[in-house]
Amino acid sequence: MRDILEAVADGSLSPAEAEVRLSGYATTDAGRFDAARETRRGVPEAILAEGKTPDETATLAVAAVETSGRALVTRADTAHAEAVADALPDADIDRDARAKTVVAAAPDFERPDLDATVAIATGGTSDAEAAGEAAAVLREMGVDVERIEDVGVAHLGRVLDNLDTLREADVVVVAAGREGALPTVVAGLVDTPVIGLPVSTGYGHGGDGEAAVLGMLQSCTVLSAVNVDAGYIAGAQAGLIARAVSDARDDDA
Amino acid sequence: MRDILEAVADGSLSPAEAEVRLSGYATTDAGRFDAARETRRGVPEAILAEGKTPDETATLAVAAVETSGRALVTRADTAHAEAVADALPDADIDRDARAKTVVAAAPDFERPDLDATVAIATGGTSDAEAAGEAAAVLREMGVDVERIEDVGVAHLGRVLDNLDTLREADVVVVAAGREGALPTVVAGLVDTPVIGLPVSTGYGHGGDGEAAVLGMLQSCTVLSAVNVDAGYIAGAQAGLIARAVSDARDDDA
Amino acid sequence: MRDILEAVADGSLSPAEAEVRLSGYATTDAGRFDAARETRRGVPEAILAEGKTPDETATLAVAAVETSGRALVTRADTAHAEAVADALPDADIDRDARAKTVVAAAPDFERPDLDATVAIATGGTSDAEAAGEAAAVLREMGVDVERIEDVGVAHLGRVLDNLDTLREADVVVVAAGREGALPTVVAGLVDTPVIGLPVSTGYGHGGDGEAAVLGMLQSCTVLSAVNVDAGYIAGAQAGLIARAVSDARDDDA
Amino acid sequence: MRDILEAVADGSLSPAEAEVRLSGYATTDAGRFDAARETRRGVPEAILAEGKTPDETATLAVAAVETSGRALVTRADTAHAEAVADALPDADIDRDARAKTVVAAAPDFERPDLDATVAIATGGTSDAEAAGEAAAVLREMGVDVERIEDVGVAHLGRVLDNLDTLREADVVVVAAGREGALPTVVAGLVDTPVIGLPVSTGYGHGGDGEAAVLGMLQSCTVLSAVNVDAGYIAGAQAGLIARAVSDARDDDA
Amino acid sequence: MRDILEAVADGSLSPAEAEVRLSGYATTDAGRFDAARETRRGVPEAILAEGKTPDETATLAVAAVETSGRALVTRADTAHAEAVADALPDADIDRDARAKTVVAAAPDFERPDLDATVAIATGGTSDAEAAGEAAAVLREMGVDVERIEDVGVAHLGRVLDNLDTLREADVVVVAAGREGALPTVVAGLVDTPVIGLPVSTGYGHGGDGEAAVLGMLQSCTVLSAVNVDAGYIAGAQAGLIARAVSDARDDDA
Amino acid sequence: MRDILEAVADGSLSPAEAEVRLSGYATTDAGRFDAARETRRGVPEAILAEGKTPDETATLAVAAVETSGRALVTRADTAHAEAVADALPDADIDRDARAKTVVAAAPDFERPDLDATVAIATGGTSDAEAAGEAAAVLREMGVDVERIEDVGVAHLGRVLDNLDTLREADVVVVAAGREGALPTVVAGLVDTPVIGLPVSTGYGHGGDGEAAVLGMLQSCTVLSAVNVDAGYIAGAQAGLIARAVSDARDDDA
Amino acid sequence: MRDILEAVADGSLSPAEAEVRLSGYATTDAGRFDAARETRRGVPEAILAEGKTPDETATLAVAAVETSGRALVTRADTAHAEAVADALPDADIDRDARAKTVVAAAPDFERPDLDATVAIATGGTSDAEAAGEAAAVLREMGVDVERIEDVGVAHLGRVLDNLDTLREADVVVVAAGREGALPTVVAGLVDTPVIGLPVSTGYGHGGDGEAAVLGMLQSCTVLSAVNVDAGYIAGAQAGLIARAVSDARDDDA
Amino acid sequence: MRDILEAVADGSLSPAEAEVRLSGYATTDAGRFDAARETRRGVPEAILAEGKTPDETATLAVAAVETSGRALVTRADTAHAEAVADALPDADIDRDARAKTVVAAAPDFERPDLDATVAIATGGTSDAEAAGEAAAVLREMGVDVERIEDVGVAHLGRVLDNLDTLREADVVVVAAGREGALPTVVAGLVDTPVIGLPVSTGYGHGGDGEAAVLGMLQSCTVLSAVNVDAGYIAGAQAGLIARAVSDARDDDA
Repeated sequence: MRDILEAVADGSLSPAEAEVRLSGYATTDAGRFDAARETRRGVPEAILAEGKTPDETATLAVAAVETSGRALVTRADTAHAEAVADALPDADIDRDARAKTVVAAAPDFERPDLDATVAIATGGTSDAEAAGEAAAVLREMGVDVERIEDVGVAHLGRVLDNLDTLREADVVVVAAGREGALPTVVAGLVDTPVIGLPVSTGYGHGGDGEAAVLGMLQSCTVLSAVNVDAGYIAGAQAGLIARAVSDARDDDA
Repeated sequence: MRDILEAVADGSLSPAEAEVRLSGYATTDAGRFDAARETRRGVPEAILAEGKTPDETATLAVAAVETSGRALVTRADTAHAEAVADALPDADIDRDARAKTVVAAAPDFERPDLDATVAIATGGTSDAEAAGEAAAVLREMGVDVERIEDVGVAHLGRVLDNLDTLREADVVVVAAGREGALPTVVAGLVDTPVIGLPVSTGYGHGGDGEAAVLGMLQSCTVLSAVNVDAGYIAGAQAGLIARAVSDARDDDA
Repeated sequence: MRDILEAVADGSLSPAEAEVRLSGYATTDAGRFDAARETRRGVPEAILAEGKTPDETATLAVAAVETSGRALVTRADTAHAEAVADALPDADIDRDARAKTVVAAAPDFERPDLDATVAIATGGTSDAEAAGEAAAVLREMGVDVERIEDVGVAHLGRVLDNLDTLREADVVVVAAGREGALPTVVAGLVDTPVIGLPVSTGYGHGGDGEAAVLGMLQSCTVLSAVNVDAGYIAGAQAGLIARAVSDARDDDA
Repeated sequence: MRDILEAVADGSLSPAEAEVRLSGYATTDAGRFDAARETRRGVPEAILAEGKTPDETATLAVAAVETSGRALVTRADTAHAEAVADALPDADIDRDARAKTVVAAAPDFERPDLDATVAIATGGTSDAEAAGEAAAVLREMGVDVERIEDVGVAHLGRVLDNLDTLREADVVVVAAGREGALPTVVAGLVDTPVIGLPVSTGYGHGGDGEAAVLGMLQSCTVLSAVNVDAGYIAGAQAGLIARAVSDARDDDA
Repeated sequence: MRDILEAVADGSLSPAEAEVRLSGYATTDAGRFDAARETRRGVPEAILAEGKTPDETATLAVAAVETSGRALVTRADTAHAEAVADALPDADIDRDARAKTVVAAAPDFERPDLDATVAIATGGTSDAEAAGEAAAVLREMGVDVERIEDVGVAHLGRVLDNLDTLREADVVVVAAGREGALPTVVAGLVDTPVIGLPVSTGYGHGGDGEAAVLGMLQSCTVLSAVNVDAGYIAGAQAGLIARAVSDARDDDA
Repeated sequence: MRDILEAVADGSLSPAEAEVRLSGYATTDAGRFDAARETRRGVPEAILAEGKTPDETATLAVAAVETSGRALVTRADTAHAEAVADALPDADIDRDARAKTVVAAAPDFERPDLDATVAIATGGTSDAEAAGEAAAVLREMGVDVERIEDVGVAHLGRVLDNLDTLREADVVVVAAGREGALPTVVAGLVDTPVIGLPVSTGYGHGGDGEAAVLGMLQSCTVLSAVNVDAGYIAGAQAGLIARAVSDARDDDA
Repeated sequence: MRDILEAVADGSLSPAEAEVRLSGYATTDAGRFDAARETRRGVPEAILAEGKTPDETATLAVAAVETSGRALVTRADTAHAEAVADALPDADIDRDARAKTVVAAAPDFERPDLDATVAIATGGTSDAEAAGEAAAVLREMGVDVERIEDVGVAHLGRVLDNLDTLREADVVVVAAGREGALPTVVAGLVDTPVIGLPVSTGYGHGGDGEAAVLGMLQSCTVLSAVNVDAGYIAGAQAGLIARAVSDARDDDA
Repeated sequence: MRDILEAVADGSLSPAEAEVRLSGYATTDAGRFDAARETRRGVPEAILAEGKTPDETATLAVAAVETSGRALVTRADTAHAEAVADALPDADIDRDARAKTVVAAAPDFERPDLDATVAIATGGTSDAEAAGEAAAVLREMGVDVERIEDVGVAHLGRVLDNLDTLREADVVVVAAGREGALPTVVAGLVDTPVIGLPVSTGYGHGGDGEAAVLGMLQSCTVLSAVNVDAGYIAGAQAGLIARAVSDARDDDA
């Protein structure tokens, strides 16, 4: 701890970075940014914009870039995205409007680069936000992402057309709403791990993703699931698996 | 009413049949047999053996044969089946042990014969009881039944192998437990009406058919559903559709 | 595939129609229109206006008219309806404000014409939107539709007054909220297939259509059900049955 | 209190009756009998046999007869009934095997006699136990009971046949399982208070009386409901209303 | 029917009243007013303002006054109330702002006058709307209403203070939110019928009245319940009982 | 650790006690006994007999007595109790048949003795098992226990009769099934902490303790709750509070 | 009562205070303020600002200060807070914006001062409102409060860092959303009473605090729980325990 | 297909193996054994003994050994295990009584051998069956398994003691019942993928694993989950990940 404080004293370490090393948190007016999670599991911590003002979001994004080199903002609307860009004029900004994600990286930030691929399949247009969130965290972890869209269970032809891509991936994330059957169909066709990502489409009885998450838990094949609309968690879990595979490739290389 | 009573008096009508014509019910020691339902909708009334003793079941079966020419017993174990056979020594007995159905028909009973086919597809062995119940009621309504078994959503190849049979049927009943996705997959492949029959397989969260029935109600394609394990209802509804098609064929013939 | 592309090259096929024939989708700025569903099951694909801007809705309606000859828009408010009409100045526009549906058809579009009738009964004024959605898809499938309104289970006289219309239909769709008992009452009075359409009226415990959908699944007579407010699905399923009946009439004619 | 104890001392009051007057309870080896409830609301307290041994049931029945003149035992099987009869050789025993009730009355017990009638309608055979429990408590309160059986919502003719009986009653209790719609249908036809009694028939989704109780709470007409299988409560509530009506008749007589 | 039409022809009957006598409904631009319910059960039909515009509400109120002499509007805010008053300048207007009810009566309308009293007890301020709805319908049925407010189960003293009023009523309606225990406490203290009215107060797990309605169904004493916030139903059911008592008093008078 | 092992070597410590000190567990053929919990929170660990054979229960009880001086067995039937007594012939055995608890203590075991009192109130006979479990753990923690039985919310008089006892206790545990309102009533009358213990009485909708636990969470006064039938937890929590009070008394003494 | 009225007459008691002494309530235009609760259990009654206008909130706060010396307002936004401050220009105002609480005290109000400490631990930033509500009521009861923030179960190090503070408290309140496991982890580490306070964070299946409250009820260690977001109840219950401890300290001092 | 049939004809292939190669199923009197699943995803198909007779189980085990070299039987009691051993006298039998698994392998069967490790942690004794099922399928897939038992969230010390083992594994499966928090705690301490396996311990509200599965879906860290008691699925999913890692190690070796 002494050396951290001395590094602050001699200016080689900013107070913000020092706080993170000592406490795991960067304190801002808009709350704390949990920089330690990246250290703990190598997964970039996300800033959930939903429920925050654009200013609060930007303040946290600045803290994130300052302490961990980049910020991953999820469920961000246009105002959030613009506030982040304005607050970080030097950063590289990468926004995906459908996924509602914004990534801001310091110019000198070096993203990890893993030797592994994750395929993300969706059943329909309304799965795009959750799937895009998964894609964003995967890209930030350095994983190659393959997107396969609109391959619903009522359109088997489109599933079969994409079989090679699904089979060549190291991990497959499958997002699906309504009855949530697509992960089961995909898992019956590939021999890689499949992660089911239920989406809150659907209405009436069993709506808001309830039928989808129950269907994935009840799947008659092998898969694990995350919560409804938990795109960040699905992506991060797939990224942890991909990193394990990539590390195994590297170790033996 | 007078002529019914006179027919009883001169012996040309049994008291049991007379009671049915007057009240719609045949009264027995084991309860009433609702003979009128067959009159009302042309669907043979089922005697639910579950929860009844073999003797009670047999008593009701005798009343059914006497008043409507046949008895359809569902959820019958071996003891129920034997009691029915013993009580109706002259009847033609047709038992399906996996479906747990027993049909007893008077020797002179003439089953209707419709010009229509219903396909019944199942996802796995444990769907056999519900599907067999549907098949039994359909056969008694005079419908041709095609069975397609073990075509789960994790086995797409087997679904595709049976596509011609599914497409040639006038109606398709699809029984499925666990996540209940098979009706959706089938409905995406055929242009005939599909009826989803959820089955109470599955365990844990969403078990006992809950995920299956919710999944069918949430289906992203066109189908209607019945309750969990309601094989009799699914078969009868398919039979009503098949009869409408058959009648249309006959009318124009 | 070559001939499709040559047809595009010589101008006899628009790029939009060519895309549909090749992929089943027409791509627009507002998302994709799934033109293939009509090909697959003969059911016109609906554009759900709810949650879309008037502009997005109109863009998809234009794609639908261009590729399949017509657009069926559901849950459309006045702004949606006007945007569709403005975007398709040459189309025939048919709007049902209570059902919140808009149908736009190219001047030369020829609707199918089936020889079958579907009766749609409702329990009260608040069932009108779901029932109207069912009616719209049925009319687009070429089915004759008979509407019977406000025949709630607490008004038995009105049910009995309409018995002839109910009995003469080939299929009956019954929309009901609150306790959802009307389909059961109707199914006890007719010998045609009945499809229950639960509606999200009702409040407090079991509200939002939950009691209605459970009541239909528990019905003590023969019927199948769709999800809460799923007017489009109920209509399409009735239309598939009606078409099977109509085809049977034609085949033998 | 002094006079109660003196009455015990001089033998004009049994210790059991004295205990009841002082504490409201008669203490037995099998638990307490809450004799005070009859005093409090004039409703005979029921001894629930289910979950008790025949001996325990009989012990409580003896205490009930001793302190309140009679015992009302519910959910009693044959062994319970026989044990009660054996333990009370002088009592008048009235057993209803289908309702699973046993009433044992001291020879000199005088039942109240009210000038009011309650009709109890059931939808099917399986509603008999709950309805019979209601009938037993009503009879013990001195109310005339009219039973109307098997008038399910899918059998409207039978409902209409019994309209006069339903309309002439002062209160109507309607027991129904499955979708529980019968109370609504009846309440639409009469102008007396209707109490809905849901019954735990039904299976699968919404089974065990859940759809029935929700349907009664959602009824689109005027009625109040009790819990699933709560025949004793439905009967007692109807009895309190009937007594109010009878008292009004008497007051003015 | 002929005489109704002749009365219209000679002007002694308005077309609106004639429509009601023939169909039970008065048709307006804002929907139908179900005038027949009053005829059927003697309970004034309520116009639910919630979800309607002030204009629609006023249109229905005019139809109600024209065909049945008065209008009972529930869940009405200030704008609804003013629109009703503006549309019926000659009517007597009675508004209860906390109950959100408006009653408009034609100057010559004669309210029934029953010889019976209903007490309405509430657990807290937030029960006032549901309780006031019950009071409004009771007053329109001609019942004397006694209000007892803020007698929650955590304030036993206040319950006991009002015991005489509760015991002297012919029927007691008890509104309670949160855990909904007040009806049970009251029913343990009186010997008249008690109707539980659960209210949608409460938050978190079991909130929105769920704990309250379950608690009333589980009550360890004798009472029946209506749905959450169903003040109109609770009042009307109490009114039907009160009328039966009043009629009994009158019959014998 | 070395001294523990040396104590085992020289015989001054049994291997069982040594294992507990090192790992917190005593290993037996019937599973492990978690002796460390007593160390951790001073609460005697309970052996849940339900689901275990009498032999397994006795084996664990022997381990408990050997390592912590006593065994507290819950949900024990007669066979479990006898097996424990047989296996521990020298122990003091204290069995409460209604609570289904057995306490076996080594002859030299010294129970703690706290200067604090906990009152346990129950709504009815069926709450006795849960309440007895709470009493057993409290006695083992050295707390004085006051039992107040059958003070249901429908019997307010009995609650008021026991007010002094309730008010003099340091903590009150209130067990209640059905609607679970008793803890609220009691908490409105005392100024000490109240812990609600829901009991799985009740049937039908909201049965098995669901209405009770929701009602306690929704209570309109101040109390905290444990899970349904969690008598051990309620007693232990009350014991922790009582010990804090007792320690405060001692500290200052 | 006479002396209260005489005190009003001679001006030594305000009418508002007199009303409180006689009825327990202070009546205002904005509803009643239940001043008696403080008398009953020594817990300051809270004014729930949510759902009230700033004016109504201020009116109740004035009544509270007038009758009990202070007002505790919960779920207050800026407008509520300002209205309270404006209406009570002489009062000491203490606002906690994150907790959304406002305390207004008369200048001469003397807060109680207890000799006891409660620790409040939170799992994350979003638990701050519920935890702050608990802290506010505790401070008003005179308890010393120790806050420990952001010690989620996925950050064990931070839990362990704060172990001394947790162990030195007399009671611990632990607020946690999502899976709600923090109270269990803390209770495994301390030997004081722990109260679990579930928070309505979390989304999708089991969201809005449902998983959290179920997890606390299922805890494998000893704790009791309050409802979701019931910070006021958790604080008050902890305060009742703390006061019992403090009283014990004082009694013996 | 011709060569398969010729191999049968010349005896080099058994009919059972030929059936599997052609249809994916081996047909037996006790149902079908789905040998194809192993081919499809490399996961040994399990025979669920629960609900089957010992004879049926043994028949399926024989088919499994004959067609895929081994049988994995889950939820097997002693009778099932003995029947399997009797039916396969030459097989190597490996039974885990606590996990209720039996593995029977042909003497010449060669298990795969992967270069990867999966750690399985459990919260308590009652998690042993689900965890053992996971272990059995992992061993059959050739994965090294490390078991870490009784590391509940209320025993943090034991979690920390096993940190090295948890961190060195390639994947971690964490089984937990009650509140299901252990996977979250573990995932906060390791940087490998964690799979949550909820177990159906727990009682009362949220029991039978409901709180556990909801807690894992709501986890505030990164993990995916399977259904309650789905040990086979958790093990197989971990095995698919381990195999991907092992393959990556091999590819580069």
